[in-house]
This record gives sequence, structure tokens and C-alpha cells, in this order.
Amino acid sequence: MDRSPLSSLPLTIDGEALWRRLQELATFGARSDGGVDRPALSATERAARRRLIEWADALGATSHIDPAGNMFFRRAGIDDLDPVLFGSHIDSQPNGGRYDGAYGVVAGFALLEAAARAQLVHARPIEVVVWNNEEGSRYSPGAMGSALFAGQIGLDALRDVQDADGLRFADELEATIADAKAAGARERKLGFPVHAFIEPHIEQGPILEREGLPVGIVDGIQGLRWYRVTVHGSSAHAGTTPRAARRDAFVGAAELAAALRAPTIDSEDAVRFTIGRFRVFPGSPNTIAERAEFSVDLRHNDDALLTSLDEVFTELAQRSWSGCSVEMERVMTLSPVSFDERVIGLLEQGARTSGRSYRRMTSGAFHDATHMASLCPTAMVFIPCAAGISHNPLERIEPHDALAGAEVAIAAIVALAQS
Amino acid sequence: MDRSPLSSLPLTIDGEALWRRLQELATFGARSDGGVDRPALSATERAARRRLIEWADALGATSHIDPAGNMFFRRAGIDDLDPVLFGSHIDSQPNGGRYDGAYGVVAGFALLEAAARAQLVHARPIEVVVWNNEEGSRYSPGAMGSALFAGQIGLDALRDVQDADGLRFADELEATIADAKAAGARERKLGFPVHAFIEPHIEQGPILEREGLPVGIVDGIQGLRWYRVTVHGSSAHAGTTPRAARRDAFVGAAELAAALRAPTIDSEDAVRFTIGRFRVFPGSPNTIAERAEFSVDLRHNDDALLTSLDEVFTELAQRSWSGCSVEMERVMTLSPVSFDERVIGLLEQGARTSGRSYRRMTSGAFHDATHMASLCPTAMVFIPCAAGISHNPLERIEPHDALAGAEVAIAAIVALAQS
Repeated sequence: MDRSPLSSLPLTIDGEALWRRLQELATFGARSDGGVDRPALSATERAARRRLIEWADALGATSHIDPAGNMFFRRAGIDDLDPVLFGSHIDSQPNGGRYDGAYGVVAGFALLEAAARAQLVHARPIEVVVWNNEEGSRYSPGAMGSALFAGQIGLDALRDVQDADGLRFADELEATIADAKAAGARERKLGFPVHAFIEPHIEQGPILEREGLPVGIVDGIQGLRWYRVTVHGSSAHAGTTPRAARRDAFVGAAELAAALRAPTIDSEDAVRFTIGRFRVFPGSPNTIAERAEFSVDLRHNDDALLTSLDEVFTELAQRSWSGCSVEMERVMTLSPVSFDERVIGLLEQGARTSGRSYRRMTSGAFHDATHMASLCPTAMVFIPCAAGISHNPLERIEPHDALAGAEVAIAAIVALAQS
Repeated sequence: MDRSPLSSLPLTIDGEALWRRLQELATFGARSDGGVDRPALSATERAARRRLIEWADALGATSHIDPAGNMFFRRAGIDDLDPVLFGSHIDSQPNGGRYDGAYGVVAGFALLEAAARAQLVHARPIEVVVWNNEEGSRYSPGAMGSALFAGQIGLDALRDVQDADGLRFADELEATIADAKAAGARERKLGFPVHAFIEPHIEQGPILEREGLPVGIVDGIQGLRWYRVTVHGSSAHAGTTPRAARRDAFVGAAELAAALRAPTIDSEDAVRFTIGRFRVFPGSPNTIAERAEFSVDLRHNDDALLTSLDEVFTELAQRSWSGCSVEMERVMTLSPVSFDERVIGLLEQGARTSGRSYRRMTSGAFHDATHMASLCPTAMVFIPCAAGISHNPLERIEPHDALAGAEVAIAAIVALAQS
């Protein structure tokens, strides 16, 4: 067993078992190219949830699911205090990797396993959490389960949202909850007091690898704004309609996309501006597009800069683009988040105790920790991923980094469970 | 009955019956917005084909279907000569109108009806033709049935083409042929000698309406080139990946699309350049696109100009666009077409006999007549459509124009059938 090097840690983590669980979880929704396609609330994700319930059963933890589809695997404490939460998510992008989200959940099971083996006694309940629908690629917005848990959004407004195949969110959620209950999970109400939350996660960026560090202790998350843009033109025959008579929604949308992008090009390369979804309708080669729809994902550390870009965007959306009109809706707003200094301090202490070098850093991606930070003391631990590649089947991590991150995070959460 | 005004025409066309048939055909695949969605080889198109067979039965014409899915409704001549063909297509764009294609087919049934009523005797067989898959929006390329009939392309290369739902062309074709045979159509071999072809069609452009003319006699079709462009980038996380580290397929494709469009912007507004299909993959808001695919539809009267633009396009596709590589494939090439002067002369004579004012004009759209012109003397008749709008549920024509165009075209085809 590749055990932790220092006996001063509260628990000894089994690195091989952690790696085996990671690879087993990756078989649910495995793609032929080595990646994972495990959409939130899908049949493959339901099967993965059932497997987690089996893992929890074997480790003496009780399984729970709340009305938002979040799952909790609970190891009782000796006192009836607010629990500490530890975990991440298991849904993936359509062409996702094996470790985004999955790493934090499997680190949670490494904690349950080590605690069971050591017969660890702790004051507070320790709960491994699986937040529902973090990716948001099947049902928008992302980080939905933690946002619902933290009361940032309400469930009613989401029920009728449909995925690309026309399947309703409420139906898929209900089926997932029924499936989990059939496998032994207990129902639980949405939202409860939490003492602290730690989320281990892969970095999804290049910094730790470049600096040769196994661990990042994350002290905050950059702010994010998501927009949904619709450009309305007029369909007409591609062969007969002169340029002057066209209102081509593709041309209008492409011009608007370039205009929105221009003010985000900063010399520091710190603003993140992405159009990841772009569709034209009806989508026929010889018909001028009558409508185009695209997404905008905008992020930066500085909320004031995001607000000023928002004003520029709003002004641009009021113009006409190649004769087309524009609707622009802001569908998600996350202010930059600063994590809890006490939790950060316990993580730094965990890194020192386990002899792992680390750096403090800010997260470029949003995470479920974004919403939890509004509810309880929260922080995150990052481990490096190869070339910073994520949301891609090529996503890779190293077993020794997976163990290092788990040790640091588990040291802190166990300390919090004792207090 | 709104009969033709002049007795010197060979047949008296029933304008009300022609209009009723147009509206009945529009019920197959009717959209709630008044348009038509009748994809080639679909269940709705099969039902429409069955209805045409019923029409033909009632008018004493025999129904035939060939291995390309083209249908022929034949009224025998007194001699065993090569037939004259008259017709168009019944498939539509996904958000198409009621008259594109349908008008030419219904004009054919107006001919069969008038000939039956008058017990017209003619030397050559007269066949109303329905060319398969003219639009090309479900299975590329467009004008497929007439291209197969004329030997411009082969059937084998098309069999495994799939539509957006993964349905194979060969399977859908086979099911359509079986359905037509069950309804009474006879099998016929692909391709046979044709004496002449006339295709009545809506203009799909603004010229006839603007000039207040009921009829256009079409002396040619502008040339067309279709391209399929794929831009290869690399997917990565939208929140963590610096701009400098991105190979964003959306950004590359949008830049390339603008670069391809730039040299087509001519002061005469005569070049037609359209990107009607544009897709990004995986299409998730917080994932940088790894791939973008788009179509290019390029048209002009002058083949040399199309060739020089083709060279510019090829050069542009060899460059790197925001770090992305490009594959560009030319999937259809149609040279500009000049129609047969004798057929044009008969159409002009028909217009004079029926007292309909007209102009000669070039077609901006390609049609099945493009391919037929390589096989036999061919021409087209246009009627105006409101504001030139087509490939759109708002497509509109006037009953008196529908009658005028049918009279002119029928006068010419009957003259050709006697020769």
C-alpha cells in the first residue's frame, strides 16, 4: 500500500485504492477515446450514483439524496453538531475527462475508507457530498445543485428546462431520485446548516504543473457572467437574394461575436472570454440563417471590470448587426469569491504536516465551492493536471498528486470535524 | 372556372383546380406558421407521393418510380417516341414555403387534367416528373435526383450518407420506393432519352414582382459551388485557459468565415456568398470549441470569377486561423447553364398566344433543370413570389400568376409533344 509518509497525519490514506476508485468511476460513461461522457441525471450518471451507494454501504456510511439531486454519504460524529462537507461532483462535459469533479468525490471516499479503517472518532458528522449538475452542459446553469442547496436559485424555475433532446429537468431529476432511493439512499430536505466545506479538484489550468507543485490551496474564485445571445435575421434563398436585401443572422451574429470579444482582449491575458455554443437556424446550406444563438462565458478576478464589460456588452446588443436585431440575456452571475482564512490555514497546516509543497492560488473555473462559500467556511485544494487540459478526454493527473491533494484536504476536514 | 382567356391555346387550364391542388399538397408537412416542412424521403413526403399517384390514377396517367426516387406520371402519346418531361420537386426546406418545387409539379397535374378533359392527342408521351431531393437540406447534394438521372453523379457514393438523425440515405430511399410501389407506382430504370424538359418554378427573387410581370422565361442558371469547411482546434476549460494558450475552433472558424466572405463583396452585388450551416463542437458554454463545421454556398453567372474565388478560398484554407487547422472540401460544382433557344422560343410564343407579358431572365437559384440541360433541350418558366421571399414560411404567390405561368409552360410542352 502506498501509504502517507508521515504518521503525524490524522489518517493514513490508501493511494492505490484511491486510484482504483478513480478508474472505476471513469468506466461509467467511458468514451472510446479515454474520456468520459456522463451528463447530469443521465442513465450513466444514475448508475455511477448507485455504485457510490454501494461504496458507502461497504464503509458504514449512510446515503442520502435531497430534492435537488445532491447526494450525501454520512459518517456519524459523536455529537449532534452541524456536519463538515467534503466532495465535488460526478457529472461531466459531453467530451469530458476522468478527473474533473470525480477526483473530489473519490477523495471523499478515501476519507471514509481511512476513517473506517482507523475507527476514527470525531465530534461532527463527516459527509461526502456529490453536488448535482455542476457542469451545466445538459441543463443550464452550472453548479446547479450547490446553488439550490445554498438558496441562490429556486427549484421551481428550473423544472421545465429541457435538454437538447427535449427531456425535462424535473422528469430526469425525479427519475434520478427514485433510482437512488431504490438503491438505498434516504430522502433528505434541501439545505441544512453546514460547519465547513472543502472541495478537492483538479486545477484545470497550467500553473501547478509549470511550477512543479503537487498541491494548490485555493483562496478564491474569479467572477463569472454567462450570457445567452439570440440574433434575429430573416431566412431567404441563398442563390437569389442580393447582399443588400439580406438580413443574415449568421453574419450579424459573427459580427456581434467579434465586437463583444474585442474589448476583452487585455494585455495581461487575464480576462477569459469564450463562445462555446453557437448555432444557426434553420441550418441549411442554401438558406440564409433566420436566427443565430450563442453563449458567452466571461470571467475575471475583478468584479468592477466585469461590470464595465457588461455595460459595453449591453450597449453592443442594442445596435443592429447586418440588419439583425439582438436579444442578450445574462443567465448567470457569480461575483468573485474569497475563501475562509481559517479553512485555508488548516489546509496550509495539512500541507506542512504531510510534507507537501504547495502554493496559494485563485481558481479560474467556478466550482460548487462558489455557492457554498456564501453558506459556510469554505476552501478548495487543487492538484495539477497535464498541460492544464480539462473538459477534454486528454485530461490526465498523476497518482502521487492525487494522494497528496487528498492528504492535505483530509487533514483539514478531520481537524474541522473535531472542533 | 377561371379558364384561360384565349382559345388559341392548345389546352384550357383550370386555374381554380390548380390552386386547390397547390393548397392540398401544402397540407403534407404543414407547419403551424403556414409554411411547409417536407424533407426528401420522409414520411410526410411519402404520403404526398401517394397522393400524387391517386391524382394520376384519376387522370388516366400511369405512375413510375426509378432507383433514384424520381417519379414520373405518364400520359401516353400516339407514337413510341422519347417523352417530353414537365415538372419540378416536392421536397422542401425545413422551414420552407408552399410553392418552391410544388408549383411545377402541380402545374404538371394541371396539364394532365386539361389534356384528359380535352382528350388531347399528342405524338410523344407527356410525363410529369417529380425529381427526388432537390433541396439537399436533408441529404447533400441538392438536385440529387436529376443529377442521378442525368448521370452527373452515381448512386453508390450516396448510399451511406446520413441525415442529422443518423438515418441512411439508402434505407430511406428504399423505404420510399417500396411505399410508392405499394401505392401502385411501377419500377423504372434510372435514366432514359428525353426529348425536352420544361420546369415551371417560383422565381425566389424580387425581379418579376418589382417589374409587375406575371411570367419570366428563364434562359440560364448562374453557377454554384458548395464547400464544406472543418476547423480543428483544441477543447479546454473556458475559465482557466489563457487566450495565448487557446486554439479555439469557434474563433478560428469565425475569422476564416469573414476572410472567405471579404473577396466576394463586389460593388455590383452580383456574387452570392452564404454560410447557412455553422456548428461548433462539443457546444458547451464553458468549453472552448475543439471543432467547427460550416457550409459555403457561392454563386455567380461567370464561371471564371467562381474559379478565381475558388483559388482564393483554397489559399485561405491553407493558413492557420487562431492556431486552428482547416479542411475545406468542395462538395458541389455547377457551371453556369444556358438553356435551349428553341424551347425558349416556344415559351415566348406561348406567352404571346396567352397574352401574358414576360421578360427573359437568369435564375439565381439552381434547379433540377441545371442537370437536365446537359441531357436534353431544357428551359424554365418563373412566376413572381411576394417580395422575392422563398425558403421561408412567408413564401406567397398569386393565383392569377400561377395560372399564367402554367399556361405559358404548357403551351410550349404541348408543342414539343407534337413534334
